[in-house]
Amino acid sequence: MNVLIVLAHPEPASFNAAMAQAARTALAEAGHDVTVSDLYGEGFNPLAGRHDFTTTADPARFHYQSEQALAARENAFAPDIAREQARVAAADLLILQFPLWWGGPPAILKGWFERVLAYGFAYVDGARFDSGLFKGRRAMLSVTAGGTEARFGPDGVYGEVEKVLWQPQHLTLEYMGYTVEPPFIAYGAPRVDDATRAGYLRDFAARAVATAAREVVRQGPAGSPLDLVADNAWSRKG
Amino acid sequence: MNVLIVLAHPEPASFNAAMAQAARTALAEAGHDVTVSDLYGEGFNPLAGRHDFTTTADPARFHYQSEQALAARENAFAPDIAREQARVAAADLLILQFPLWWGGPPAILKGWFERVLAYGFAYVDGARFDSGLFKGRRAMLSVTAGGTEARFGPDGVYGEVEKVLWQPQHLTLEYMGYTVEPPFIAYGAPRVDDATRAGYLRDFAARAVATAAREVVRQGPAGSPLDLVADNAWSRKG
Repeated sequence: MNVLIVLAHPEPASFNAAMAQAARTALAEAGHDVTVSDLYGEGFNPLAGRHDFTTTADPARFHYQSEQALAARENAFAPDIAREQARVAAADLLILQFPLWWGGPPAILKGWFERVLAYGFAYVDGARFDSGLFKGRRAMLSVTAGGTEARFGPDGVYGEVEKVLWQPQHLTLEYMGYTVEPPFIAYGAPRVDDATRAGYLRDFAARAVATAAREVVRQGPAGSPLDLVADNAWSRKG
Repeated sequence: MNVLIVLAHPEPASFNAAMAQAARTALAEAGHDVTVSDLYGEGFNPLAGRHDFTTTADPARFHYQSEQALAARENAFAPDIAREQARVAAADLLILQFPLWWGGPPAILKGWFERVLAYGFAYVDGARFDSGLFKGRRAMLSVTAGGTEARFGPDGVYGEVEKVLWQPQHLTLEYMGYTVEPPFIAYGAPRVDDATRAGYLRDFAARAVATAAREVVRQGPAGSPLDLVADNAWSRKG
């Protein structure tokens, strides 16, 4: 199947980069087509703005979703967004690899959500969660955390993993319709010994291969997602 | 008291900008000193990187927290970060005003957390949550949401507000030691009628003034936060 790994870490020699590489190698050896979006490496711009589009819905007032809706209709996304959208559209399995910074995805990945997963491409009114456009496809978070596992337990100071990862996992991936696998979490990544880290790399590669072996039945619309929407609610307040 | 409002929205005529302005005006009329960090207006760069620092801890491998620790010791943060840190340090009350995009703060604000709230300035090992450096100070989120209130209820598709806002509220502000007020949420902001939006502006301004009237007793360390740390755990894995 087609797999897209999105990597969000500024250091090419980081453990996050090693995790992405381990999955890429194992998936390719298992016969899958793997693409890596290395956001820092590619100089991805995380800032939402008019530079996202070659069209303008309202020159006087910038309403992001209205501009996204127009660009989706007119195929008018900026080249960096169009490239990433093509990768997402092609992927049966989407893996996001990132360090937990302030308990969430780094800004460069949050900006990737905002710019690439645009209205009209990743979701439209009435097509969310169980009716999401990416229903049937699979996604997984792979996260490195400075804290130990106990800090993410029921009595841990950070709260349970489900709560910590609610924004990227539920409010983004599940919102789009993905079937989201349990996250892979490398606890204490900067603190554990080399053998533990080698184990993380091995286990994550195995998880990625096992996930890619499971069936995907795409259920998205055949035409433009915007055909699903008779009346674009977002453009009303443009 | 000193109040800092951080605004994260690309459109100067947005409802988010109006919310920040309503609070600013009401707080100033009540005699408070108010600063607004308009992140888009000021062209804030959300990307973590070597440009954050005028020092270099390790030229071969970029480990963010190690670089932050050195910069905190040497007063070597880049000017945009130093300016924002001075604003945060001066503020008794911190208000974050932003739209929920993909269920969380926009990337520009997430990047502000990462770059401004640096190790050695906003937290150090052993000084978190109840022992956080900003203990005694107050903070509040003010959020606009496209969804209605029912979507954020116990049976709502987005989950309860506490869970949605866990990253900025608990894993950032409470982590730093702030006493965090209940969030102000303008539900259905792009869809409600003008009277409802006028009510949001009025109610939020009143909430901000009432919060600023409450006592703040700063409990942070007198010297550098790094004096609290005998052994910098983060630099071990530099």
